[in-house]
Amino acid sequence: MFYHDGKLQYDVKVDKPNPQFAKMLQQAIGGIEGEMKVCLQYLFQAFGARGPEKYRDMLLETGTEEMAHIELLATAVALNLEGATNDLKDEVAKDPFMEQIMGGANPRHILSSGMCAMAVDSSGVPFNGSWVIGTGNLAADMYANVTAESAGRTLATRLWQSTDDKGMKDMLAFLIARDTMHQNQWLAVLEEIGGLEGNHPIPNSFPREKENQYNNYNFLSTHINGESKAKGRWSDGKSIDGKGEFTFEKAKPLGRKPNLGRPHPNAYAQKEQMKANPSMAESAINKMRND
Amino acid sequence: MFYHDGKLQYDVKVDKPNPQFAKMLQQAIGGIEGEMKVCLQYLFQAFGARGPEKYRDMLLETGTEEMAHIELLATAVALNLEGATNDLKDEVAKDPFMEQIMGGANPRHILSSGMCAMAVDSSGVPFNGSWVIGTGNLAADMYANVTAESAGRTLATRLWQSTDDKGMKDMLAFLIARDTMHQNQWLAVLEEIGGLEGNHPIPNSFPREKENQYNNYNFLSTHINGESKAKGRWSDGKSIDGKGEFTFEKAKPLGRKPNLGRPHPNAYAQKEQMKANPSMAESAINKMRND
Amino acid sequence: MFYHDGKLQYDVKVDKPNPQFAKMLQQAIGGIEGEMKVCLQYLFQAFGARGPEKYRDMLLETGTEEMAHIELLATAVALNLEGATNDLKDEVAKDPFMEQIMGGANPRHILSSGMCAMAVDSSGVPFNGSWVIGTGNLAADMYANVTAESAGRTLATRLWQSTDDKGMKDMLAFLIARDTMHQNQWLAVLEEIGGLEGNHPIPNSFPREKENQYNNYNFLSTHINGESKAKGRWSDGKSIDGKGEFTFEKAKPLGRKPNLGRPHPNAYAQKEQMKANPSMAESAINKMRND
Amino acid sequence: MFYHDGKLQYDVKVDKPNPQFAKMLQQAIGGIEGEMKVCLQYLFQAFGARGPEKYRDMLLETGTEEMAHIELLATAVALNLEGATNDLKDEVAKDPFMEQIMGGANPRHILSSGMCAMAVDSSGVPFNGSWVIGTGNLAADMYANVTAESAGRTLATRLWQSTDDKGMKDMLAFLIARDTMHQNQWLAVLEEIGGLEGNHPIPNSFPREKENQYNNYNFLSTHINGESKAKGRWSDGKSIDGKGEFTFEKAKPLGRKPNLGRPHPNAYAQKEQMKANPSMAESAINKMRND
Amino acid sequence: MFYHDGKLQYDVKVDKPNPQFAKMLQQAIGGIEGEMKVCLQYLFQAFGARGPEKYRDMLLETGTEEMAHIELLATAVALNLEGATNDLKDEVAKDPFMEQIMGGANPRHILSSGMCAMAVDSSGVPFNGSWVIGTGNLAADMYANVTAESAGRTLATRLWQSTDDKGMKDMLAFLIARDTMHQNQWLAVLEEIGGLEGNHPIPNSFPREKENQYNNYNFLSTHINGESKAKGRWSDGKSIDGKGEFTFEKAKPLGRKPNLGRPHPNAYAQKEQMKANPSMAESAINKMRND
Amino acid sequence: MFYHDGKLQYDVKVDKPNPQFAKMLQQAIGGIEGEMKVCLQYLFQAFGARGPEKYRDMLLETGTEEMAHIELLATAVALNLEGATNDLKDEVAKDPFMEQIMGGANPRHILSSGMCAMAVDSSGVPFNGSWVIGTGNLAADMYANVTAESAGRTLATRLWQSTDDKGMKDMLAFLIARDTMHQNQWLAVLEEIGGLEGNHPIPNSFPREKENQYNNYNFLSTHINGESKAKGRWSDGKSIDGKGEFTFEKAKPLGRKPNLGRPHPNAYAQKEQMKANPSMAESAINKMRND
Repeated sequence: MFYHDGKLQYDVKVDKPNPQFAKMLQQAIGGIEGEMKVCLQYLFQAFGARGPEKYRDMLLETGTEEMAHIELLATAVALNLEGATNDLKDEVAKDPFMEQIMGGANPRHILSSGMCAMAVDSSGVPFNGSWVIGTGNLAADMYANVTAESAGRTLATRLWQSTDDKGMKDMLAFLIARDTMHQNQWLAVLEEIGGLEGNHPIPNSFPREKENQYNNYNFLSTHINGESKAKGRWSDGKSIDGKGEFTFEKAKPLGRKPNLGRPHPNAYAQKEQMKANPSMAESAINKMRND
Repeated sequence: MFYHDGKLQYDVKVDKPNPQFAKMLQQAIGGIEGEMKVCLQYLFQAFGARGPEKYRDMLLETGTEEMAHIELLATAVALNLEGATNDLKDEVAKDPFMEQIMGGANPRHILSSGMCAMAVDSSGVPFNGSWVIGTGNLAADMYANVTAESAGRTLATRLWQSTDDKGMKDMLAFLIARDTMHQNQWLAVLEEIGGLEGNHPIPNSFPREKENQYNNYNFLSTHINGESKAKGRWSDGKSIDGKGEFTFEKAKPLGRKPNLGRPHPNAYAQKEQMKANPSMAESAINKMRND
Repeated sequence: MFYHDGKLQYDVKVDKPNPQFAKMLQQAIGGIEGEMKVCLQYLFQAFGARGPEKYRDMLLETGTEEMAHIELLATAVALNLEGATNDLKDEVAKDPFMEQIMGGANPRHILSSGMCAMAVDSSGVPFNGSWVIGTGNLAADMYANVTAESAGRTLATRLWQSTDDKGMKDMLAFLIARDTMHQNQWLAVLEEIGGLEGNHPIPNSFPREKENQYNNYNFLSTHINGESKAKGRWSDGKSIDGKGEFTFEKAKPLGRKPNLGRPHPNAYAQKEQMKANPSMAESAINKMRND
Repeated sequence: MFYHDGKLQYDVKVDKPNPQFAKMLQQAIGGIEGEMKVCLQYLFQAFGARGPEKYRDMLLETGTEEMAHIELLATAVALNLEGATNDLKDEVAKDPFMEQIMGGANPRHILSSGMCAMAVDSSGVPFNGSWVIGTGNLAADMYANVTAESAGRTLATRLWQSTDDKGMKDMLAFLIARDTMHQNQWLAVLEEIGGLEGNHPIPNSFPREKENQYNNYNFLSTHINGESKAKGRWSDGKSIDGKGEFTFEKAKPLGRKPNLGRPHPNAYAQKEQMKANPSMAESAINKMRND
Repeated sequence: MFYHDGKLQYDVKVDKPNPQFAKMLQQAIGGIEGEMKVCLQYLFQAFGARGPEKYRDMLLETGTEEMAHIELLATAVALNLEGATNDLKDEVAKDPFMEQIMGGANPRHILSSGMCAMAVDSSGVPFNGSWVIGTGNLAADMYANVTAESAGRTLATRLWQSTDDKGMKDMLAFLIARDTMHQNQWLAVLEEIGGLEGNHPIPNSFPREKENQYNNYNFLSTHINGESKAKGRWSDGKSIDGKGEFTFEKAKPLGRKPNLGRPHPNAYAQKEQMKANPSMAESAINKMRND
Repeated sequence: MFYHDGKLQYDVKVDKPNPQFAKMLQQAIGGIEGEMKVCLQYLFQAFGARGPEKYRDMLLETGTEEMAHIELLATAVALNLEGATNDLKDEVAKDPFMEQIMGGANPRHILSSGMCAMAVDSSGVPFNGSWVIGTGNLAADMYANVTAESAGRTLATRLWQSTDDKGMKDMLAFLIARDTMHQNQWLAVLEEIGGLEGNHPIPNSFPREKENQYNNYNFLSTHINGESKAKGRWSDGKSIDGKGEFTFEKAKPLGRKPNLGRPHPNAYAQKEQMKANPSMAESAINKMRND
């Protein structure tokens, strides 16, 4: 169960409302790098957590914290929209500030939400539930979470760079700090459950002997000739998971050209597709004829 | 530029066509853990790569390899659909094998594609371009790639577990092996560009002194009382990035209750929303009246 | 800010796991009538609330309660999936129970989430942020909320009807009760801010004299002749908002056939579209020629 | 069956083409508050109407009227785009009017549609069929329709406010009037089939005794302490449906902390997740081992 | 403006309700090959038609006819759902007919719509406005329409093949016939406005001399060696538009390897990406340093 | 399998970076008329090709070429973004060039991708897998491909018209030429497999005698009276497929008004919907009562 106190986790002040910045902030709410994603991702991972209890508990803690981040940012969007206007009237053309604002603002902030935050990104594309990753594999989920916090912190620094509103910079500096912690937090779980050698290859519960043994540590170069510069730590030496040796190999087909034969009559392809196909055995054709 | 030879990277044989398994394989083609995602993700990262040339080259190599994986899986779907039928007629009810097939098959494999693979996942939800992650930050991208290969290998092992078709198991064992390599490959880049301490917090180019200094290494517990079991590597000791000390702290609001005041008249809220609001200064109200 | 205690708002017991029912329950999580929608809808409405403080507070209370409902249902999904299997092997065909399960189960519950709830509906379609309605107009929002709770309670009764698992029926009976309360709650706000006559037409702050005065209380019948049976409370008598008289009128065009003229040359239509158009004045054509 | 006469339901004149306003008008076509939604919603409700014939007939009448509204708005978009240009050339920078236009215009109005309306909203997000609500429950559907017309009329007034083009204001004043009628119309159905006490809780055909009897009229406060201001008509007195008494109660968990146990081996979680879990009975663990 | 008469364009009878077939029919309603798409596509093309009046009129005629097709199919879905049930109870397992039905049915037909058609495809994926194609170029639009009717007729024949319900086969035979007419109809426009030589390349209003003159009639083979079998009418002889000669050429790069240089500091890439890049001129690096 | 050489198919030079043009170019990458669509469409058609081998080979050739087009355009986007900035600071208002840029630029080009191309269209809407058309019918697919290249070439000419950057115009002139070839190429297949008379109606393998014989060559006019101007090649004379005679007919209903009867009690409609319905036989009502 969940509770609230109606207060903000951090102060939100906007010195100079800017609808264009409101639009940009939406990326941190409803975007694929945003707080709705991490909030729901951590909560769904917690709700479905199987195994040691402490990971469920931790996910629940931080998922709940992220709700407060949505609240912070939604408040920031509303305050930045205090300066919005839906006037497209003639006088506007004379006001350079209005021009700038209208140009980059999200029209739905006026038309649809009446100057509030929405569950969309900075292009106005709605939040999508497919972004909520929970695999049921703890290590895979922790990498998904580090990824989310890395993209999230990168986004927050770019937003910080985009404004010189003191209040907004202060709020973003707080969110940047939380992302620092959360990157460390998910990495800490990865260390605790085995580190690079213990976790990889993920999932580590699949019997290694069932995996193809000849293609699990070779970098395959698809370069058409030998000019590739794609050499580095991954093309030579011990593998990162400590269980193999990297090699560099030219990719080549191990299979043949596929032949799907003629279409099934019931699927109503064109008649021309069903005509004799030289590479198809007569027996197969006859079989199809009698289906 | 890109080239092809029309051959498969690995052999694809289906001993016993199974439309239900064809539907499941679609997750590995058009799903968020699938090959379309990784293929496009690595290629877009390559196309936009700034910085050392070898990372662009490597991304291009592996993005190109992933195209061959889409080809493998699309071939496998088509071959598994050779047993599909669109007969819902009365006789079907008598054939238990048909019942099973129809139940779990994707009707669009017959209706829309005429027994071929589509750019959708195992629920029939279309591939979505938002899943193609490229942040312009190399470390963030590498984590996104490790995540993709971890979820991808987990998916492949679950597909492997779902079938006892020998050909399918063999193809999946190959793909599982490639995912092992690719996990190692992206981790190798992370090691090469600095490892945990060098890379984190991502982005490492943001000036640390601009980040809020009091909230970057404390685990914030949102538990309503002291019963949380969320303690571990992340709540105590040196942080993973080596730049701070973890602490465990009870979350509390640093901000106040937000007050957005009355709605702007032009936004056509209800009149009742615009009535006097005790917590709103009269001057602000008058200002609004005169807008 | 938000807090949690890790306990469920109501007990969740599953006597007999049923993956098919797990799939159906997803509609109540990630569907357009589900708990994610109402949770986010009430919270976003609260975050953007302008006007009397008590409505913001109430929305925040109930939005927070709905989070606990997501938690309930996600737990129910996970428990129903304990009986799931990804075996499509030959033996399956012999086991009628397995057949039933595989037929209707969501394959992603095994392949993607490893037997946990996901942010999708019962077709596997991801939750979509566009469903989170907040207009900035309190009355419009309350109707959106009554709608959500009406569709939501209807869904819950249909789920209740679909199972005879005692634990599931008990949990659903609780959720059905909460939906009863929430319907009443949003209706109570509508009564408090003016009732039918006070609120309508929504928004009530738009100057009525600006609205077209001849088309605001007439039912327009688009039936091609006089056979329509569409008569009732809406076609005669005082309007519901008490501000007009209903009439029943045959719809007829008040405008002319539109004529958009010829395409602009820069838009690269076909040349044939740009040829002389009898209904287009020569001067307009010449003007276009000289653009 | 449907027919047309090629004339507009109301005159559409644009005195001064404005591509930026064309973009805003798209919200009223392809947005979640737009005419495509209501048109399809009423038609699908009609097509699936079971029960008294007059409601089916009425829905068909108004659904057909809404098609004419799409036609009106699509014509308005096309006429506003007569002033659009795809010139991003140097000279543009010198022309302040062009700057304003390009800033806020939808590039697809030039690139994709060649200066016509599209089935998208004002952010360019495509219309989505999930917005077409029909529950099979007449009262729930009527609330969905009142909601649609309330958000729709609010949108139309905001568009009216955004322009001083006389022709556009006139067309919008007509649409605003129709929304007034349609709000009244759906409310009239609700009155006719029972009003607040007759209809609620929706669905009114579910046996009330099956609903949880202790949680259907209590406002649950999730506020962490007693400071909530969320008191009003909903926290005290007779319920709106006349069947209960409102109370105000502090929310508390009625369930326990959930425990999903260890992951199933076939789902390939990490091995660490499967290790002994203190809160899990040994017998359960052994059972899993033998699965 | 639009009108209706409440009657069906063709009789809809269902001899034996089949919820599984109801699900399949949804593809013809809300799928990318379905009637919603063609209806809206023809209407939007009509609403935005510029140029000779008769094409606008014709598009409006057929767009209006397609509405009646949605009505037919929605009625067919509702009638097929008369046999649906939401019982997942124990007894179900004993009833093979129920098993089959539940397996393949769309659960939302019960849970969400109460046994009516929805605006979704046969996977339950909602209709998407992006499918409504109107380019402003008449010839491009006619090809889009031929495509829609070709995929649509193919779908209808596959549905026809899937059932032996006499009523359903009869309705589908009608729809198949209409698709025959509509394919011919759009082809007739293409003939009328110039045929293959007159229309192509589309758009025919772009000045041909501005197009690259060396790459407009050569088939480029990306095959890695000379084994391609991709030879036919397109690799030799006069081009279809009569304006060139087909040739067969091996694809080779005309451009160089791209070099995007170092990332801009403000975008917060990793520091390692910004380090010296051998292939980057020192001057460029210095310039960046001073930004 | 696929290979690459890291070089561009054509030179990409940007004389004057323009973030607004970068946004427009995205339509040609991730839009429904863009290169991702055609690339994946041709590749999926190839992967699923049944019938004569040369068509599979040809599709594979051109699908592979289109990958190089994505590469070209992604490079062009990145180079146009070199001039992007995320500064919304006060000074910006003074710089008219910045104003123009910020107005029309996609904020995610800075916030999300760090100045690289993304898998989205020019509105920021993500690429959608539903656009990848492959029907399993060769003729239907070829029309889909001609459509794609017609919309694609139209888009490219509009982009060409939008810029006077010499490098961009040169690259677009190359892409325009390739679209000319590809239109011709797919038309060549249509000629080779039978031309208009041989291919239509598509699919040509469905037995014509099963189609409704009275409605396959008549243009149905839904105009409410006789004023339609929709006459042309399609309303008179031999049909384009050579198998019928066009006629012009006034549309009229061949079916009756549908009657779905009363709702099933288990679906929980309102009680009022279930009351006696005069047009419903008593026996049917009783039957429902006993269900």
